[in-house]
Amino acid sequence: MQKPTIPQGTRDFSPEEMTKRDYIFDTIRAVFRLYGFKPIETPAVENLSTLMGKYGEEGDKLLFKILNSGDFLNKTTDDELLLRNPVRLMNKISEKGLRYDLTVPFARFVVMRRNEITFPFRRYQIQPVWRADRPQKGRYREFYQCDADVVGSDSLLNEVELIQMMDEVFKRFGIRVCIKINNRKILSGIAEIIGEADKITDITVAIDKFDKIGLEKVNEELASKGIAAEAIEQLQPIIGLSGSNREKLKTLKILLKASEIGLQGVKEIETILDKIELTPLVSALDLDLTLARGLNYYTGAIFEVKALDVAIGSITGGGRYDNLTGVFGMPGVSGVGISFGADRIFDVLNQLNLYPENLIRQTQVLFTNFGEKEENYVFPILMQLRKKGIRCEIYPEAAKLKKQLSYADNNQIPVVVMAGENEITTEKLTVKKMSTGEQVQCTAEELCKIVSS
Amino acid sequence: MQKPTIPQGTRDFSPEEMTKRDYIFDTIRAVFRLYGFKPIETPAVENLSTLMGKYGEEGDKLLFKILNSGDFLNKTTDDELLLRNPVRLMNKISEKGLRYDLTVPFARFVVMRRNEITFPFRRYQIQPVWRADRPQKGRYREFYQCDADVVGSDSLLNEVELIQMMDEVFKRFGIRVCIKINNRKILSGIAEIIGEADKITDITVAIDKFDKIGLEKVNEELASKGIAAEAIEQLQPIIGLSGSNREKLKTLKILLKASEIGLQGVKEIETILDKIELTPLVSALDLDLTLARGLNYYTGAIFEVKALDVAIGSITGGGRYDNLTGVFGMPGVSGVGISFGADRIFDVLNQLNLYPENLIRQTQVLFTNFGEKEENYVFPILMQLRKKGIRCEIYPEAAKLKKQLSYADNNQIPVVVMAGENEITTEKLTVKKMSTGEQVQCTAEELCKIVSS
Repeated sequence: MQKPTIPQGTRDFSPEEMTKRDYIFDTIRAVFRLYGFKPIETPAVENLSTLMGKYGEEGDKLLFKILNSGDFLNKTTDDELLLRNPVRLMNKISEKGLRYDLTVPFARFVVMRRNEITFPFRRYQIQPVWRADRPQKGRYREFYQCDADVVGSDSLLNEVELIQMMDEVFKRFGIRVCIKINNRKILSGIAEIIGEADKITDITVAIDKFDKIGLEKVNEELASKGIAAEAIEQLQPIIGLSGSNREKLKTLKILLKASEIGLQGVKEIETILDKIELTPLVSALDLDLTLARGLNYYTGAIFEVKALDVAIGSITGGGRYDNLTGVFGMPGVSGVGISFGADRIFDVLNQLNLYPENLIRQTQVLFTNFGEKEENYVFPILMQLRKKGIRCEIYPEAAKLKKQLSYADNNQIPVVVMAGENEITTEKLTVKKMSTGEQVQCTAEELCKIVSS
Repeated sequence: MQKPTIPQGTRDFSPEEMTKRDYIFDTIRAVFRLYGFKPIETPAVENLSTLMGKYGEEGDKLLFKILNSGDFLNKTTDDELLLRNPVRLMNKISEKGLRYDLTVPFARFVVMRRNEITFPFRRYQIQPVWRADRPQKGRYREFYQCDADVVGSDSLLNEVELIQMMDEVFKRFGIRVCIKINNRKILSGIAEIIGEADKITDITVAIDKFDKIGLEKVNEELASKGIAAEAIEQLQPIIGLSGSNREKLKTLKILLKASEIGLQGVKEIETILDKIELTPLVSALDLDLTLARGLNYYTGAIFEVKALDVAIGSITGGGRYDNLTGVFGMPGVSGVGISFGADRIFDVLNQLNLYPENLIRQTQVLFTNFGEKEENYVFPILMQLRKKGIRCEIYPEAAKLKKQLSYADNNQIPVVVMAGENEITTEKLTVKKMSTGEQVQCTAEELCKIVSS
C-alpha cells in the first residue's frame, strides 16, 4: 500500500505548530479588536463568477476550480470536448472555486449586506486562502491571511490607525521592523512631471536598485526602458532621495510643484506624519518612493513592513483602494486595509526565537495508572482538579511506569502524580516534578496549590 | 450587473454571528484542553487517493473535487472524452478534493507522523468540512466539525472521559441534554442470539419506533423485513426494554448469556457506568439499544447527545472504532472519539437564548470627531485608553453628531466621548452612556475608570 501524502504546497500542523500559530493569530486579533475592528468570515468556496477576472489573467489561472457535482459533462457538446480548450471547457464543468484572497470575498460581502452595514465598516478576517502557485520555500498553496480594512471612509485617520496597529502588533511580537509608506499619488505626480505616465512601474523598479547598483547603473536601466534622457535628468533628485521623511517631502514638494495630484500625495503623507507624531511609534516609519506593491490596485497610501533582523520579504502590506465594490455594482465605496503575512511572521518568530515561554497551554498534570483500584482512587481527585481549571490527564492503562513517565516527558507534562497501595492507605499522593525529579507526598488540596503556583 | 451571491449551502458570518460561533468553539476548545487533548490542523485540500473509498459510494459522490491546474485534459484521449463517463473522466482530470470529515485526515496524519507521535495520542481538531449534499434547513455544504479522539488505547477510561467531556461542554452551554450510549457488541450479540446477524440495522430502526407506534406495529415492521417469527419472539424483552441502566443490563445479561460478544458489550457498559459513578454527571446518561449511528464504522461504544428542550437531531456523536489507520497501511491503531455539531449547537443556543450577556467583545468607547483640532486633542487620549487594553474607535470624519451617535448605536458601543472647544479649554471630556443617555464631564483618567467599571 502506498504511503499517504498531502498535496504539494499544503501543510499539517502539529500541536506544537498549532500553539505557535494560535499565538500569532491571537496577538493580531487582539490588536484588531483593540482598534474596534469586527470579525467576519466568508465561505472557502465562492462562485467563479465572483472570483474570475479580479486577479488578472495570471490570477484566473491560479484559482483552484471545483468540478461540478454529478454528470459534470452535461453542458458540453462532443465538439466542445474535442476542441480541448481548457479555459472554455472549464467554464462548462466548473462553477465554483476556492477563495484566492480575503479582499474580493469581503467586497462581495459588503455588497450583499449593504443595507445592514453601518459605514464606515471596520472588519477583520483571518482565514486561509488557496492559490495554485508553484510551491517553493515559504510559499504555500494553502495559507492564512489576516486582514483588517476600513471601508466607506476617505479620512486619513484610518491610515494613521492602521500604521499604529502594525506598530502595535510587531511591538507585541518583539519583532523590530521598519514600516514603509508611500503614496500612489506621488508616483503619479512623478510620472506626470517627467511625461512618462505609463512607465511608473519601470521607474520604481529601477530606483529600488539604487542602494545595490548605484546611480549610474540606475540611469542606464531607465534609459534601457525607453525613458527619455530629459526625463531621467528630472528624476535625479528622486533617485537618491535621502534624509528624514520631512526632508524628503520638502524635496518632493519642489519637484512636484507643477503636479496637482503629486502635491496631493505629498500633503496626504504630511497629514499622516502629523497625526502619527501625536503618539509616536516604536518602529521606524520610512517614506519609500520605491514602494509600489500592487500599483494598479492602490490609489492612495501604500504600506509595507520589513523585519530588520531577518532577511525575508515584506511581512505585512496594504494600502488604500478606491471603488472596492464597483466590480459588483456598488460604486463609491473606498477603503484602506492591511494584511499580515502569518506564515512569514511564523518564520521570523522561529528564526529569532521570540515565542514567549510557557506558550504551550497543554496538560499540567498526568496521573499515572497502577491498576483498577488505584485508578478508582485517583480519578475523583483528577476530576476535582479539572473543576478548578487545571488541565489533567490520566494514563488510560496500567502500563509500565517507565512508559507512563516517558509519555509525560514527550508531552512536556510538568507534574506527574503517582498513587499506589501506600498512598491509598494514607490518603495522599506522590507528586513528581519532571524538571527536577523531586518527589513530595501531599494531599489533593496541596497538589492543587503546587500546580497553580 | 448581476448581484453577487454565494454558493448554495454556504454562509457568510457577520460580526454578531462570529461572536456567537467563537463562543461555541472557545467553550468546546477549553474543555478539550482541560482533558489534555492537543490541537492539530490538516489542509482543506487532500489528495483524492486519501479521500476516495472511505465514505462509501455515496460519500465518493459527495466529495468536492478540484480540477487539475493548467491543461487538465492532457491525460485523456478523445475516445475517453466521448465516452462521457463522469466517474472515469473525473479520475483523469482531478487529483485533489476538499476534506469531507476530520477523521480520515486525522488517520492520514497519524500514519504520516507515526514515528513522532507518543501514543496514546489525544488530539482535537476544529475545522470546516465540505460535502456536496443537497442543502436544506440546518444542513450546509460547508460546516464545522469539532472532534476529539484518543488513538492507541483500548482502555474504557477513554470512553468515560469522553462522556465526562460531553457532560461538561453542555453544562457550560447551559443546554440540558441526555447522553445516550450503546455498544456495538451488544447489538452484535442480539443479532447472534436471534440468528439474524445481517439484520441489525433493520432491527434497531424498528425498535427505535417503539415509543411512537407501539409494540404491535414494531413487530409487524420486523416481520415485514423478513425477520423470522421466532427471532421476533426472542426480541420481545429488548423492544420494550425499560427501567434504569442497571436494570436494562440485568435483562440483557440474561438474554445474551449464550453470546460471548454480547456479554462483553454488557460488561463494557457496566465498567463505564461504574467509573462514571465515581464523579456523577450533570446530564442523564441513558443506555439506548436503538442507538446505532454509523454502525459499520463503530466497533464498541456508541455515543449520541440529544437536547432535551429543543426538537433537533443529535448535537454530538461518536464512538469507538478499531483499525482507524489500517486503510493507510498502519494496522492495530484503535481509537474512540466524539464530534460536536457546532451548527446545531448554534441553533439550540439561539432558540433557547442561552448566550451569555456581554458576549460581544467589541468596541467599548467611541470618540466623536468635531474636526481637526478636536481630533488632535482626543487622539492621544484614545491611544492612552488602548494602552490600557480598552477597545476604542474614533469616528474618522467630522460628520454630523447625529450620524456619529447612530454609528455608536448600530455598533452597540456603550460609551461615547465628545470633546469640543469647551472640553479642550478645561482639559476634560464629555462622556455619554448610551444606555441611559446620561452625560458627565471627566478627565481622561476618570474615563478609564468609568469604562473599566
